[in-house]
Amino acid sequence: MSSLLWPGDARAGELCSDASFLAAMLRVESAWIDTDLSALAGPDDLPALAEAAEEGGNPVIPLLALLRARSGNPRLHLGLTSQDVLDTALVLCLREAVSALRGHLDASITTLAALADRHRHTDMAGRTLTQHAVPITFGLKVANWLQGVLDARDALTAATLGIQIGGAAGSLAAVVALEGSPELAVARVAATAARLGLPPHQPWHTGRAPLTRFGDALVTCTDAWGRIANDVLLLARPEIGELGLARSGGSSAMPGKRNPTLAVLVRRAALAGPPLAATLHTAAATMVDERADGAWHVEWATVRTLARRTVAAGSQTADMLAGLQVDSRRMAATLAAARPGIDAEQRQYSAPESSRGPTDSDPSRRGATDSGSYRGATDLIIDAALARAGERPC
Amino acid sequence: MSSLLWPGDARAGELCSDASFLAAMLRVESAWIDTDLSALAGPDDLPALAEAAEEGGNPVIPLLALLRARSGNPRLHLGLTSQDVLDTALVLCLREAVSALRGHLDASITTLAALADRHRHTDMAGRTLTQHAVPITFGLKVANWLQGVLDARDALTAATLGIQIGGAAGSLAAVVALEGSPELAVARVAATAARLGLPPHQPWHTGRAPLTRFGDALVTCTDAWGRIANDVLLLARPEIGELGLARSGGSSAMPGKRNPTLAVLVRRAALAGPPLAATLHTAAATMVDERADGAWHVEWATVRTLARRTVAAGSQTADMLAGLQVDSRRMAATLAAARPGIDAEQRQYSAPESSRGPTDSDPSRRGATDSGSYRGATDLIIDAALARAGERPC
Amino acid sequence: MSSLLWPGDARAGELCSDASFLAAMLRVESAWIDTDLSALAGPDDLPALAEAAEEGGNPVIPLLALLRARSGNPRLHLGLTSQDVLDTALVLCLREAVSALRGHLDASITTLAALADRHRHTDMAGRTLTQHAVPITFGLKVANWLQGVLDARDALTAATLGIQIGGAAGSLAAVVALEGSPELAVARVAATAARLGLPPHQPWHTGRAPLTRFGDALVTCTDAWGRIANDVLLLARPEIGELGLARSGGSSAMPGKRNPTLAVLVRRAALAGPPLAATLHTAAATMVDERADGAWHVEWATVRTLARRTVAAGSQTADMLAGLQVDSRRMAATLAAARPGIDAEQRQYSAPESSRGPTDSDPSRRGATDSGSYRGATDLIIDAALARAGERPC
Amino acid sequence: MSSLLWPGDARAGELCSDASFLAAMLRVESAWIDTDLSALAGPDDLPALAEAAEEGGNPVIPLLALLRARSGNPRLHLGLTSQDVLDTALVLCLREAVSALRGHLDASITTLAALADRHRHTDMAGRTLTQHAVPITFGLKVANWLQGVLDARDALTAATLGIQIGGAAGSLAAVVALEGSPELAVARVAATAARLGLPPHQPWHTGRAPLTRFGDALVTCTDAWGRIANDVLLLARPEIGELGLARSGGSSAMPGKRNPTLAVLVRRAALAGPPLAATLHTAAATMVDERADGAWHVEWATVRTLARRTVAAGSQTADMLAGLQVDSRRMAATLAAARPGIDAEQRQYSAPESSRGPTDSDPSRRGATDSGSYRGATDLIIDAALARAGERPC
Repeated sequence: MSSLLWPGDARAGELCSDASFLAAMLRVESAWIDTDLSALAGPDDLPALAEAAEEGGNPVIPLLALLRARSGNPRLHLGLTSQDVLDTALVLCLREAVSALRGHLDASITTLAALADRHRHTDMAGRTLTQHAVPITFGLKVANWLQGVLDARDALTAATLGIQIGGAAGSLAAVVALEGSPELAVARVAATAARLGLPPHQPWHTGRAPLTRFGDALVTCTDAWGRIANDVLLLARPEIGELGLARSGGSSAMPGKRNPTLAVLVRRAALAGPPLAATLHTAAATMVDERADGAWHVEWATVRTLARRTVAAGSQTADMLAGLQVDSRRMAATLAAARPGIDAEQRQYSAPESSRGPTDSDPSRRGATDSGSYRGATDLIIDAALARAGERPC
Repeated sequence: MSSLLWPGDARAGELCSDASFLAAMLRVESAWIDTDLSALAGPDDLPALAEAAEEGGNPVIPLLALLRARSGNPRLHLGLTSQDVLDTALVLCLREAVSALRGHLDASITTLAALADRHRHTDMAGRTLTQHAVPITFGLKVANWLQGVLDARDALTAATLGIQIGGAAGSLAAVVALEGSPELAVARVAATAARLGLPPHQPWHTGRAPLTRFGDALVTCTDAWGRIANDVLLLARPEIGELGLARSGGSSAMPGKRNPTLAVLVRRAALAGPPLAATLHTAAATMVDERADGAWHVEWATVRTLARRTVAAGSQTADMLAGLQVDSRRMAATLAAARPGIDAEQRQYSAPESSRGPTDSDPSRRGATDSGSYRGATDLIIDAALARAGERPC
Repeated sequence: MSSLLWPGDARAGELCSDASFLAAMLRVESAWIDTDLSALAGPDDLPALAEAAEEGGNPVIPLLALLRARSGNPRLHLGLTSQDVLDTALVLCLREAVSALRGHLDASITTLAALADRHRHTDMAGRTLTQHAVPITFGLKVANWLQGVLDARDALTAATLGIQIGGAAGSLAAVVALEGSPELAVARVAATAARLGLPPHQPWHTGRAPLTRFGDALVTCTDAWGRIANDVLLLARPEIGELGLARSGGSSAMPGKRNPTLAVLVRRAALAGPPLAATLHTAAATMVDERADGAWHVEWATVRTLARRTVAAGSQTADMLAGLQVDSRRMAATLAAARPGIDAEQRQYSAPESSRGPTDSDPSRRGATDSGSYRGATDLIIDAALARAGERPC
Repeated sequence: MSSLLWPGDARAGELCSDASFLAAMLRVESAWIDTDLSALAGPDDLPALAEAAEEGGNPVIPLLALLRARSGNPRLHLGLTSQDVLDTALVLCLREAVSALRGHLDASITTLAALADRHRHTDMAGRTLTQHAVPITFGLKVANWLQGVLDARDALTAATLGIQIGGAAGSLAAVVALEGSPELAVARVAATAARLGLPPHQPWHTGRAPLTRFGDALVTCTDAWGRIANDVLLLARPEIGELGLARSGGSSAMPGKRNPTLAVLVRRAALAGPPLAATLHTAAATMVDERADGAWHVEWATVRTLARRTVAAGSQTADMLAGLQVDSRRMAATLAAARPGIDAEQRQYSAPESSRGPTDSDPSRRGATDSGSYRGATDLIIDAALARAGERPC
């Protein structure tokens, strides 16, 4: 794992680690013959397995040699091919990542919903193309953050991965030979899926949309979190100072300096994700034959890295949001200083019908900025986000 | 458009062209005020608009100046911001791309379903990691191609894009001022969506999951098609010769040479797609403020290029599949030449129980290779693909 | 061309346009037989050529048919293959892009050198991880911008593209047959290169490092410019206000709003570039045979788009820098407001030896901040940048 | 490290591992104060450092706390900032990768040069767009492979990384305060570089062209190797059988199956590289301020992964080439079977005037297909490659 050079990686714990992946392979081989093999190999075997994995190009082959030597079970692996075990083990590991992600997403959604509701009428300067645009409320901004996180949750929900078992070239031929009929072969795959708690699925040895969809969902998560982090990083700048983080990091050179580290690290993950998901697509697009010569192999470490980083970023985002400090007075001060320019749009609409038009800039027309009318449909927009989040406004 | 250097681009016609995009912007402005403005600007205005688009950074600003000058309609655009018009116009253009894609996907699905059914029992060598593995049927291979195309169709269906209207900073403030209440403002957006035939949607100025999901769906299409093209390109090699294309291209140097051009061009599109979809994700991940300073702007040409190329590749794929020539005798000959090695797996399972095992290689055991038992669950797998395609086997 | 959706595209003029590319192909065919063919085809032929390019997969084949029909010259193209013409024509087009880029780079370098020199001692807050760090001068910041632009210039200089002629499969066999000996064949390639003003080069049909190096150099340009644009966009925010642009754009909704459009568009190009250069690498990595089945074809439009956008961004950067407005009073005010915190590092070093240490935070020690000692080696660093730029300090 | 899911990773040994990186950071801190600190921390400290790295966002901060506690040396790190240590430590690690890469490149170059020379006249079918084109020799193909590897070697040579020391915000202000003058500060940086054996360099905190150039060079390596692997994978297919690998891997399902594993794994690395190098460019393009808020952080693990994989792929490539088996009889057989079609181009040049196609001109030129004349300038092209490689033909 890349812990020293990917600060926060420890948040992903053992997710998709070599040890976890070994355990997952054992679970697949176990489920296939309905026999617990988990004690047959463990972390001590990892160095030898990793080294031996090169000869055949994947870690299933040496694992199998080891299991056969240790168990003497002649039914072991019969009917399967390496890809069945590797892909399904990967699916098991990634499912754990999904589980962790759901927790982080739900925590963030709860925090965001509360923030949006609490700051419905916390006025601040809206900014477009870096410049002051029109007044908004911080609640509106948070509702938009929330919609992005909800989009991510939906993407993840839609990206369920199923079992992958097809045998040597996807026909289940050996399984049929073992079980006696195609129907029994398919039933055995289904039983294996049930034992693993995975959805059944047709073999997808070279049809990799399930995996690319999963990778895209992970990146949709980091997109949403990165977009939030960008606002935090901007609004926590000392010249703006409208947001802050409860937890911040120090410097090796400058005593007293406080950096919005969590937001920095989330942004980092958001920059790193898209090319990794693209790699999964390039792999899918270069599949060939009944098992591809490299395009399959490139997926494994790619999706593992993507999954671990996304989980870590999800955890960091949840913490970042939980510790977000909102300085509504500073927001109000920025807005006040931005006036009257920032009210230019509204002034057009508060004028009498006869004089309305895009060029109206009479500074005496201030109606629109009174009494919060510049908030527009903010309440409805926030309500929609809260409703989608399954949270109701107080 | 990149026609000379992207052969086949003409298949995308005017989809998302500058002229189409101008027309789409006019439709948005028209729908907003429920007044037909389509005659106010046209292709002749494109050069000036394109040049003037740089000053404000987008083409809506100069278009609006032009429309205001030509129409004198004071209600024009009131309540909208550039991004509302640009994004919604893009959605309209992309919807046309979806419509074209559906046609190409459906045509391909029909062809593939028929091929899978017809070649259920057309035996051929299965290949993994470039080497002969076990026998399969061409119908099984096609069923896997088909599943990929069905995955692509599903991805496209799930990627519907809705209207994008939020006003200057996403609060609909000006619309509320114009209409008199938040509810009326939201209703006006909904009415505009209805006029354009688009689903309603909360403002997504900086929450770009709708667009990344769309880009991911496009790439899921080219992944599926590229994966097919790779097999065609391989199996159409003269040393293999199991597939061919009815329509093939010539050479500038070598008389008589025939190249599988359509497959080449589909593979090309599949290689080009993933980085473009990744650009949309990077844009989504770098959004900031209520309208981003570059991350928004990078999306437009990126998704246009991706959409046009995907449509062209879809059309090429449909043609490629319609003209696919299957040489079942050559397939049989390859398979025969690959025996007995290619039957090694099956022989393990046809042996008496006592001698079964992974090391069995007695050449006298030929039971498994008789009578098609090596086809395993091929029929069930093909049936599942046909059922998903909505086609029933003959 | 993608003008409406890539504002500023017009700055690239006809660079690598279909018409320019057609002219370049004619130049290659002309140089090969030392006969001017430029009048034989022109822009009117583009639609037919673009459409016909699909059949053989590239535009050279239909162009050749057209030239043969119109010229009757039996020597036309003899010895060449499509890729020779296409690649060399692309090189000619890209060389024009380089020429334009050099102009933009040189203009930017001159501007930056003057800015760095003028603002050597214009104090401002240095910022790291979004927070105030230590004082710097604006000249130091500009010197760093300048180093990046000089790196880009060097990368471009090192990325010279040579002629690509190898015949049908890279052996020059037909040319040898035509010329009578390998030496004469090679000499003819060299003569053709000389006529085109291109460096000679061994055939690189499937060895694409020349093209990836070129793409990498283009992205190194946009990296350098994007990095500048990011600072401009940040420092031009109203809450900071230390920089501004003479030329700025308006809004369709907000009268009086002024956006730093040029910086926005440069940043856009910087976000779009890396995935395009990556596509060229993926193409290079998937080359196969003596001419690849898609990996070659994906390069053309990719490098053209990258080249046009880089040229446009270079022009925009030069303009952006020429119109950069430096508000040194605002810089001084930010710095003053950031004190004493921003001087924390220096105070450690201005304290008596006995009390030095990283934890020193005595606010009474202000020696280091006197008399510009906090500027450190700024003058030397600026001088080094100016010297590298070939500019001497005043 | 990603060993189980990146078979062959062990070939990279401890390159850029967390332990190596820790040692490199210690070397930088040691060189800075000219005091050996290497014994103060070691692998046992890694878990705590990795975990603590998150707070400040990088591992230098907790390392420093640890070193200060253990050494009591007040001069430690004074004048440096985290980025100085992290970047320079990364440079030290990457330099080791370069050293390993040079070895692998040189071994491959030697092998390729010998192969090209030995197979100058080993005739085989040239293939373009998957189809037989004209005859070539295997030596010509290898010469093209060799040119790609030489391009990679040149790219790596040009990508030297220098020291990175600039202090808190790049002005060396603290170093000047410590040393007494800018000249002495610069001299101290130079002395540190000399101790580390690194080239001196101006601070490049936010000017990341050195790193992107390095990443591009790594990908240029995997491009060249992937391109070779693609040919090996194709020509080792049983239907072609012109190449083979001495060392091949087995299958978990199919006894007797032999897979060209090394080529598969090299191709895998070639598919994975471009998006990682693109990430470095995106980081460079999104730099801002005097130290960026995420764009810097994303580089570390990215370049480490890229470096380790490139080293492993280089080693695998060298082995693959050393064990390459050339079946010249099979090559000859394919070529014979491809005749007369594959000689179509040459016949144009050897035919009598009357029977010439639209192309031929001189009737006196003898039968091109006789006596190897179809080899064209192959010998000269091979000689050029050998000369560039520094190898002379036998």
